[in-house]
Amino acid sequence: MRRPFLALLLGFLLPSWAQADEGQWLPRQLSSLDAERLKRMGMEIPVERLNGPRGLLRAAVNYSGCSAGFVSAEGLVATNHHCAYPAIQALATPENDVLREGFLARTRAEERPAKGRGEIDVLVEETDVTELVAEAAGAAQNDAERVARVQARHNELASACEEAHPGHRCEAFADFFGHRHRMVRTLHIQDVRLVYAPPSGVGEFGGEIDNWQWPRHSGDFSLLRAYVGPDGKPAPYAEDNVPYRPEVHFEVATDGVAEGDFVMTTGYPGRTDRYWPSVEVQRYVDQVFPAVVSLYGDWVELLERRGATSKALGLKVAASKKGLANRLKNAKGMLAGLERMRLVDRKAAFERSLGAQAEPILKEAAELTQKARQGFQRAFLLENLSRGPNLLAVAVDNARVALEAQKAPADRDPRYADRNLGLIWKNQGRRLRDYAQAVEAPWLADTLVRLKAQKLLPPFLGNAPLGSAARARPVAAKMLSRSKLNREAYARRFFEAKDPSAIRASGDGLARLGLFLAQKTLEAEAERKAIEGGWMRVGPSFLSFVQQRSKSPMYPDANGSLRVSVAQVRGYIVKDGLQAIPMTTLAGQLLKHQGEAPFDLPPRFRAAAERRLRSRWVEKELGDVPVCFLSTADTTGGNSGSPVLDGQGRLVGLNFDRVWENIAGDFAYNIAWSRNISLDVRYLLWTLQEVEKADQLLAEMNVGVTTR
Amino acid sequence: MRRPFLALLLGFLLPSWAQADEGQWLPRQLSSLDAERLKRMGMEIPVERLNGPRGLLRAAVNYSGCSAGFVSAEGLVATNHHCAYPAIQALATPENDVLREGFLARTRAEERPAKGRGEIDVLVEETDVTELVAEAAGAAQNDAERVARVQARHNELASACEEAHPGHRCEAFADFFGHRHRMVRTLHIQDVRLVYAPPSGVGEFGGEIDNWQWPRHSGDFSLLRAYVGPDGKPAPYAEDNVPYRPEVHFEVATDGVAEGDFVMTTGYPGRTDRYWPSVEVQRYVDQVFPAVVSLYGDWVELLERRGATSKALGLKVAASKKGLANRLKNAKGMLAGLERMRLVDRKAAFERSLGAQAEPILKEAAELTQKARQGFQRAFLLENLSRGPNLLAVAVDNARVALEAQKAPADRDPRYADRNLGLIWKNQGRRLRDYAQAVEAPWLADTLVRLKAQKLLPPFLGNAPLGSAARARPVAAKMLSRSKLNREAYARRFFEAKDPSAIRASGDGLARLGLFLAQKTLEAEAERKAIEGGWMRVGPSFLSFVQQRSKSPMYPDANGSLRVSVAQVRGYIVKDGLQAIPMTTLAGQLLKHQGEAPFDLPPRFRAAAERRLRSRWVEKELGDVPVCFLSTADTTGGNSGSPVLDGQGRLVGLNFDRVWENIAGDFAYNIAWSRNISLDVRYLLWTLQEVEKADQLLAEMNVGVTTR
Repeated sequence: MRRPFLALLLGFLLPSWAQADEGQWLPRQLSSLDAERLKRMGMEIPVERLNGPRGLLRAAVNYSGCSAGFVSAEGLVATNHHCAYPAIQALATPENDVLREGFLARTRAEERPAKGRGEIDVLVEETDVTELVAEAAGAAQNDAERVARVQARHNELASACEEAHPGHRCEAFADFFGHRHRMVRTLHIQDVRLVYAPPSGVGEFGGEIDNWQWPRHSGDFSLLRAYVGPDGKPAPYAEDNVPYRPEVHFEVATDGVAEGDFVMTTGYPGRTDRYWPSVEVQRYVDQVFPAVVSLYGDWVELLERRGATSKALGLKVAASKKGLANRLKNAKGMLAGLERMRLVDRKAAFERSLGAQAEPILKEAAELTQKARQGFQRAFLLENLSRGPNLLAVAVDNARVALEAQKAPADRDPRYADRNLGLIWKNQGRRLRDYAQAVEAPWLADTLVRLKAQKLLPPFLGNAPLGSAARARPVAAKMLSRSKLNREAYARRFFEAKDPSAIRASGDGLARLGLFLAQKTLEAEAERKAIEGGWMRVGPSFLSFVQQRSKSPMYPDANGSLRVSVAQVRGYIVKDGLQAIPMTTLAGQLLKHQGEAPFDLPPRFRAAAERRLRSRWVEKELGDVPVCFLSTADTTGGNSGSPVLDGQGRLVGLNFDRVWENIAGDFAYNIAWSRNISLDVRYLLWTLQEVEKADQLLAEMNVGVTTR
Repeated sequence: MRRPFLALLLGFLLPSWAQADEGQWLPRQLSSLDAERLKRMGMEIPVERLNGPRGLLRAAVNYSGCSAGFVSAEGLVATNHHCAYPAIQALATPENDVLREGFLARTRAEERPAKGRGEIDVLVEETDVTELVAEAAGAAQNDAERVARVQARHNELASACEEAHPGHRCEAFADFFGHRHRMVRTLHIQDVRLVYAPPSGVGEFGGEIDNWQWPRHSGDFSLLRAYVGPDGKPAPYAEDNVPYRPEVHFEVATDGVAEGDFVMTTGYPGRTDRYWPSVEVQRYVDQVFPAVVSLYGDWVELLERRGATSKALGLKVAASKKGLANRLKNAKGMLAGLERMRLVDRKAAFERSLGAQAEPILKEAAELTQKARQGFQRAFLLENLSRGPNLLAVAVDNARVALEAQKAPADRDPRYADRNLGLIWKNQGRRLRDYAQAVEAPWLADTLVRLKAQKLLPPFLGNAPLGSAARARPVAAKMLSRSKLNREAYARRFFEAKDPSAIRASGDGLARLGLFLAQKTLEAEAERKAIEGGWMRVGPSFLSFVQQRSKSPMYPDANGSLRVSVAQVRGYIVKDGLQAIPMTTLAGQLLKHQGEAPFDLPPRFRAAAERRLRSRWVEKELGDVPVCFLSTADTTGGNSGSPVLDGQGRLVGLNFDRVWENIAGDFAYNIAWSRNISLDVRYLLWTLQEVEKADQLLAEMNVGVTTR
């Protein structure tokens, strides 16, 4: 049963439901696409100039889970405002609220370390390690062991790679349900500084109301700069670090794009699920997304209510609430979209058409899905503790670090590898800052009730009265008041001790509950991994059937590695009688301005917008300065900040969102409504020139300051 | 100061803010429009064929305040479903709910008298009576007298006209603030029968949610037939009446219209206010519409709450609530629209540009507006009693009839002329049917509190505790339980007695309150009329300034007389980035279907829609059967049911609504968003052919039944 379709990497075939403009391609797959079609679409740059060690796509970097792009020879990086948000927020003080007012470094000396969110990874090398991983996996006796062996081999290979290349990060990627494996090495730049951020009224214009929506008018961009040590090697922040000089960077286009134009979007999409059989999609429809809607819906309401009681509490809950609300909206959009495209029915019809020979593999798939269904409710709750009550999350993560430390390094969950502990503590710190007893007590009470319902409470809480949130409230309050975890030094001590027995011995009930839940989480993850191991076995076989039916190359699901999508600037039919036009303008942004958040443009932006028609950045056909545009690019989360290139490979935009109808695009691309939203680079240029007079930045991007 | 711009009727000039496709033209004005432009737009039929006694526009009839059109030589009439609604409702019984199921007469014998809403008026003659009315008005000593004299002259002329022409109705229309007067004589057809009504799930598809909205998918049409006595003269319903044979009727187009096509919409628009000076528009913005939003908002909420307590009460309040909610939505749209187009500012700028010579007349206008402001709150409340608590409205209208009967016939308010008493009693009957004590008591209590606040209570209620709705509740309940007005025979006795002293002498507190309020209403109306008389003086002078600035002909405000609008099928930019496509389709209707009201298509419509692509009525470019379309026609209330004609004068649609952005179009036309919504006649034909198999009706309309 191993590798039933070796042809995959040579002639990847599109699933039969795939359509034009679909595909999050590995860069090297570009050469296997229909060259004639790319040319007709408007792609002028030769594929050879995009690929390889000095290929242009290497200018697309990973910025801590977002995408970004080098736009000058001196390490200037463009990304989304919402990607740089934690960095901007960390620089903001009550006296100098750069988040609200915006930030502009007029000289290199004024560029400020972007503490909140830091690293930039520049792709250096990608190696096929399929044989090495397959060798390890081949000896597995069962599904669980298969995953463990693959993970251990990934870890070994990554460690060896990093040891051989100081200043670099190495990460293994599994494609096609683990049918192929790649080791990706990146230059890991730690010193990243903020160069420009628009005011939040621009960067977040439209806020949660416009999120996932078209028409859109957000100025969702920021500029950063990558710094390295004087020796040119990655180094932590130091005053005498120097700007990093990338091997390649994107030229910024000054003439932009118009409806129908070719665009290429490149970046680091996080996750898609395009190849599940129908049974697994069905599980998402009737189990996974409804669970998200229910849990996050309740929590958002709880935080809403508690946050409304005072301004201080409102600020404390803001980040958690925003994160949950965004995922809640996403889940609702997923359900609506999956229903609209009848994906389960269409996949089921495809599977029926495969006939008897596919039956055994579909049966195995159904069994894996059934297993996932059984353990789902407990696993879901455990998994979401990290988004739940802050102090409980601190307790669970502290305990998890301790438990992982007991394993051999190669056996550890990569998220808890030593090199990631700094990131984890940063997150713990945020939780401690967000902690407020008045919110935490009812939130923890709600969570305790849910844990009890899933039989996830340790014996010492076995008799606690947790029949309802009201009854659980005093239990939660007592647990919180008796815990010292809200003291950073105390929490930090446990974190660094990495000693489960110390937690167990402590009189801190919350810490002990965290340990119990971390253990339960490990158990649930073990179950999940066994299922994942099953998919490593069943998935490739299922894909071989998909391949047989298809005639185009086939791209692997998004998994955080560098991809490229070829597309066109194009509107869509929102519904019968209503059409989205693919470009928005400054005039539309002004019309949306209401003088209060989230539609509150700062005066200097409004003043400049009023005189926009004299600006160099007016698009002639629109008769206005463009703000955002739609395209048919195939994107998902992680593509935020993705450079959007024209047919010559010049930067014309920064991807930052998708339209509401395209949320379920993670499960299937559909040319009718798969649309992403990009900031038009002319809005960025207009801002720098007309609002901020940042001539030096324009000059650095080779955009001479001229007027009409 | 009299008639300062006699040129008006010869060379009406458009106000400077007028734009292309604007204008609710008198039919005879068509010949003064730019013939070249009409031709370019696609008008092929010669203007002479539209006008005059045998002109095609005479096929557009007035159906009790709606518009409609003859579509066969045997008196078949097409109008909106919502226009025929009372007629259909009156035919519905629990056993045979034709409102819900729809109605189709397969033979003439099956055509049923449309009792709920009856008369059809066919235009016969229009006479200029300006000189006769001006002569009467000329002798007036003040503004109030001016109005009284004009109204009395109107009444005299109408009565003389009707006496000279039995079976006809005569009505006077004042144009341009009473600068011109016309006497319009119509053939008054009383026997109107229902021929076809779609199920309410089709006719009202989208309901209140889609009301005033695009995209739209309502099948808002019905078919009626006009009947006359065997002698060919109008007669009340009688079994041996025969179909009326109109002099002209519209041919039904089978090839429809497409985007960009010329269309002409003709009918009886009720009221527009295009020529007010800025001060009066300002009064609507900050006084009139806010009062509507406040009062109707409260009443809708009250009816909502009371109606929710039982299904029976829900039905009782349905009609009142629907009417109020519709006007409430309208008022909100007016405020939003007037703000968006900054009409007050634009009018004020125009007025400033007129310079010193216009100052005196603008000052007089401001004084009239100021007077209207002062008396507004009382007048508004009194005026709205007719939409308020049912039994109080019965009491007020009964008393009003009695008070009007004391005047000489010529001095009576035309609404209360003898010939209209039947209509008034019909309305009283509806109020009595809708009456329910459980709703009326709190509603009356709310109204008593408002009356007290406006010092509008009679002495005998002077000491009643009416400080709040809660305190007023027992007062209202007592008044209702002691009144016999809810007994039809009792109410009818007062109605027929026409005797104020009998009401005064009765022990019925509610009836006596009605009399008091009817007297106060007469006082308020006298104040209003004095202001109206002021506008008769000031308005024409102001218009003369408007005329001087303009170069196109000028149309009078809508006032219920026959008009025609020339336009094009055209979408619009809903907002930056979003465009309305001007046609919707059966596919879109199916997508909106949800299986529950207001999106609940009957199975036979859905089944036919599923096989629509084989239908003759598919529009090739759309690839589907059209349902509704947008055009730039200049329409308002009263245009419901208006025949929409193509360049050859053939019926292509039935106007039934406007888009949300165009509600404030009553105050100013704007080519950017002045769009009306019409039913595409191909949806009507598709329904008759594919759903109902009503071949005989199609044949009558000369639409042969063929299949593709």
